Amino acid sequence: MTKTIKNAFYAQSGGVTAVINASACGVIETARKHPDKIGKVYAGRNGIIGALAEDLIDTGKESDATIAALRYTPSGAFGSCRYKLKSLDSNRREYERLIEVFRAHDIGYFFYNGGGDSADTCYKISQLSESMGYPVQAIHVPKTVDNDLPITDNCPGFGSVAKYIAVSTLEASFDVRSMCKTSTKIFVIEVMGRHAGWIAAAGGLIEDYGFPVVILFPEVEFDEKKFLAQVDAKVKQHGHCTVVVSEGCHYPDGKFIAEQGAKDVFGHAQLGGAAPVVANMIKDALGHRYHWAVADYLQRAARHIASKTDVKQAYELGRAAVNLALRGKNSVMPTIIRTSDAPYKYRIGCADLKDVANVEKFMPLDFISKDGYGITERCKRYLRPLIAGEDYPKYENGLPRYVTLKNEAVRRRLPEFDI
Amino acid sequence: MTKTIKNAFYAQSGGVTAVINASACGVIETARKHPDKIGKVYAGRNGIIGALAEDLIDTGKESDATIAALRYTPSGAFGSCRYKLKSLDSNRREYERLIEVFRAHDIGYFFYNGGGDSADTCYKISQLSESMGYPVQAIHVPKTVDNDLPITDNCPGFGSVAKYIAVSTLEASFDVRSMCKTSTKIFVIEVMGRHAGWIAAAGGLIEDYGFPVVILFPEVEFDEKKFLAQVDAKVKQHGHCTVVVSEGCHYPDGKFIAEQGAKDVFGHAQLGGAAPVVANMIKDALGHRYHWAVADYLQRAARHIASKTDVKQAYELGRAAVNLALRGKNSVMPTIIRTSDAPYKYRIGCADLKDVANVEKFMPLDFISKDGYGITERCKRYLRPLIAGEDYPKYENGLPRYVTLKNEAVRRRLPEFDI
Repeated sequence: MTKTIKNAFYAQSGGVTAVINASACGVIETARKHPDKIGKVYAGRNGIIGALAEDLIDTGKESDATIAALRYTPSGAFGSCRYKLKSLDSNRREYERLIEVFRAHDIGYFFYNGGGDSADTCYKISQLSESMGYPVQAIHVPKTVDNDLPITDNCPGFGSVAKYIAVSTLEASFDVRSMCKTSTKIFVIEVMGRHAGWIAAAGGLIEDYGFPVVILFPEVEFDEKKFLAQVDAKVKQHGHCTVVVSEGCHYPDGKFIAEQGAKDVFGHAQLGGAAPVVANMIKDALGHRYHWAVADYLQRAARHIASKTDVKQAYELGRAAVNLALRGKNSVMPTIIRTSDAPYKYRIGCADLKDVANVEKFMPLDFISKDGYGITERCKRYLRPLIAGEDYPKYENGLPRYVTLKNEAVRRRLPEFDI
Repeated sequence: MTKTIKNAFYAQSGGVTAVINASACGVIETARKHPDKIGKVYAGRNGIIGALAEDLIDTGKESDATIAALRYTPSGAFGSCRYKLKSLDSNRREYERLIEVFRAHDIGYFFYNGGGDSADTCYKISQLSESMGYPVQAIHVPKTVDNDLPITDNCPGFGSVAKYIAVSTLEASFDVRSMCKTSTKIFVIEVMGRHAGWIAAAGGLIEDYGFPVVILFPEVEFDEKKFLAQVDAKVKQHGHCTVVVSEGCHYPDGKFIAEQGAKDVFGHAQLGGAAPVVANMIKDALGHRYHWAVADYLQRAARHIASKTDVKQAYELGRAAVNLALRGKNSVMPTIIRTSDAPYKYRIGCADLKDVANVEKFMPLDFISKDGYGITERCKRYLRPLIAGEDYPKYENGLPRYVTLKNEAVRRRLPEFDI
């Protein structure tokens, strides 16, 4: 256990969410309660890039009230980045630079708030820091709307996206039902999820309200004929149909139905536009009028309709990360361990990063209905508690009172570094 | 004034909104308070089509609690339609059929809840019913997310869409600001508004939070070069930029930037897809990474984030319609008369339908900034009260408890009619 007072470093990584700042709030508020162990809490400006560039933010300059407001503010308050550190072999100097910056600022705790890539980075830093003789306790705080981290029951960020998609799909389905007699019969909503259909699955919850819905999962290879038959049957029965399509929906050969050609910085295809493709297919084959929406960032930024469960867990995992550090843990990630579906019960656990890094969690096969276009009751039991409860931000003049931090820089102590 | 008890007929017309059912609630609850004047309240199943087909719904079968729940339920609870009656000359038999149905069911009050087209229909029915010797008091209840009806300060439905767009644009802008260092610098959101930029204007409210935003109005002819210069300047200053594009954004020759070829039942081009067009333009010219969203039905169905002002006014105008009828008025529409911006004050007025029918209200020129890509302080003063306040529905298991009516049919008394 760290005996002396050390500073902490916190960074946000990858795509931001409606509740990643709630985790930041949990980390900072908990750290502030232990001034005998944790000195300053520094944050990386724009994620890990801030550490490499020694561009640190002094969160101590923010009032308690401002830090508390982070719980209600979507996005990454310190800036995030899409920047994956290469392997230790191919770019050891980046890892060494991180350790140098930590050493220069007396940082003994590293809290990294992100998904699979950042769990991997966090793991490597914990390994390297020991071998470099400057031990840093590296704790990963889970965050990803994709819900694809292993071990934990769910990932903060997911519950709120799931709620947004379930609510929005429900509302749009009420709309199309009103219009279907003479006009729109098909509503298509495109949702995030490149490899895993967790977010799309949330649209399936509207079946409980009697609405017909067809889901296109990344886990199920796209078969145009079978898909159109599903839609046709639903329209014949109900007069209308809602389609939820994952951005990662793809043909058997792996080609995304939405492929645009552009690639992101990791070389992944930049997706978007599966909805109009699917809508046009239906129009061509069945002749129905359609409308389509692409939720994109709206879904992951929608703090206004965040899940109360999700916000609470995001905060608790931030707090747990600090408590794990104070208990001397290293190279771990706090997790949610579900003990009951209804009523929802869970406790906070702890996973070793070596078991988390580079493991992607897909939907269990028994969460997808046999025909491949819906979700099972088991999936619904899993999802319902995650979207439960509302946790509204305060409003002013009709708009949420989200906070923007001062983000004051810490004085640099090292020479510049070429990223 | 009607001396004897007459039944009322209520129908929803055109695209539905988050609050059109609040108007229905206002009509039905107020009618129920006057059993000495108003007997049954019938609703048209799927709008005016229900009247033509003599497919009437007996709202008396719904409990007071269910009718009260309409205030919190988006969409058209009785079904709506896109069906514009032709001119009296070219299809007199449809108008005559409506009067026959009204006569057969002892209907003395006609409440038509819609936009410009339905105001016109309502007006014609009031004229024809007199000439046919079966006087019906025809009252139009304004509804349109497009906010394009004249005389009234605003149209119920608009305030809630405006709030949804302002909140969503704000949230997505927080998101892109977090990501812009290494990834997305441009966020494009496409909003409704074929001819009038009222909805797009709402995105401009995020300037109050310091976010850079470029708006593409239908009122301003699209100029790619000037537009890209605007975006370029904002990205250079802020590192990121949000673009709000109306579906009706078009080139000087009238061609929509999003034109898909499909047409709706009125022969209007079916739009959608302006966002990816704009996003690609920026990528090609400036090289920035982008994300785009198309809100489509999500924006007009989003009862979960409806404006309290809007819900209240939708209800009040429904109530006012009945009160106007009880005062013997005919061929009128209740309106909102604004008397103060801040604090927002208004009273309910009354417009003659002859002054409403077929008049489209565009944005005043002094609501659009001189450069054509933003809104003025005057526009903000207009918009702010309309998005003010929240009026949350109740939730159950994480989803809003929206109501679906029984919609029991009234026994037919007439022969079938070929629509």
